[in-house]
Amino acid sequence: MTAHPDFSKGDGLLPAIAQDAETGQVLMMAYMNREAWEKTVETGTVHYWSRSRRKLWLKGETSGHVQKVVDILVDCDLDTILVKVHQLGGAACHEGYKSCFFRRLKDGAFEITEDKVFDPEEVYKK
Amino acid sequence: MTAHPDFSKGDGLLPAIAQDAETGQVLMMAYMNREAWEKTVETGTVHYWSRSRRKLWLKGETSGHVQKVVDILVDCDLDTILVKVHQLGGAACHEGYKSCFFRRLKDGAFEITEDKVFDPEEVYKK
Repeated sequence: MTAHPDFSKGDGLLPAIAQDAETGQVLMMAYMNREAWEKTVETGTVHYWSRSRRKLWLKGETSGHVQKVVDILVDCDLDTILVKVHQLGGAACHEGYKSCFFRRLKDGAFEITEDKVFDPEEVYKK
Repeated sequence: MTAHPDFSKGDGLLPAIAQDAETGQVLMMAYMNREAWEKTVETGTVHYWSRSRRKLWLKGETSGHVQKVVDILVDCDLDTILVKVHQLGGAACHEGYKSCFFRRLKDGAFEITEDKVFDPEEVYKK
């Protein structure tokens, strides 16, 4: 059986950080349950557990911006996952930015640090 | 008033990822409440909320391995924090490794990817 983090913690839902394997940029953080972990390991494409939709979530299923696994790491307590990925489409954030962390604190306010890679209205056609 | 993430989410406790500002290595993930956020912003030294000890936690208070803030970012949903830090002592993990993410999945098992920077028994004298 494949090694796995400790899903007895966090009510079975562990934080998973996605990091761009090429640039080191932290792209997003979401959650994995055991099923999402196994799907990610098996398929080499990152799956999370969507807390809002309460279902397995293949990241990029709508946008096509899937994340291909380069490396999977776990932390000392076996309760946080770090996935180094190759981000297809160049952007992880549903708002069109490369990283979900596109705002930084500067002089007491949040400023936007990067340009959008895509237009969400084009990608997520309603 | 300084901008802040949305502490009405996650029962007031938001995940905070620490990343080495120089190398881009993800060092650890812990949690911040509003008090920890404010202390971090005010002092320029990273504070978390210790869930196990249920108290404000100045990272490095015992080991001296404090984290100096270089940049603070928040994600699109304002419920995850990314702190780029200068890690004093060269190691973030209480087990003596530079990063808490010192194990990676390889051929179905976890393998250790880096050497210890310090001996925990020396640093946390009991």
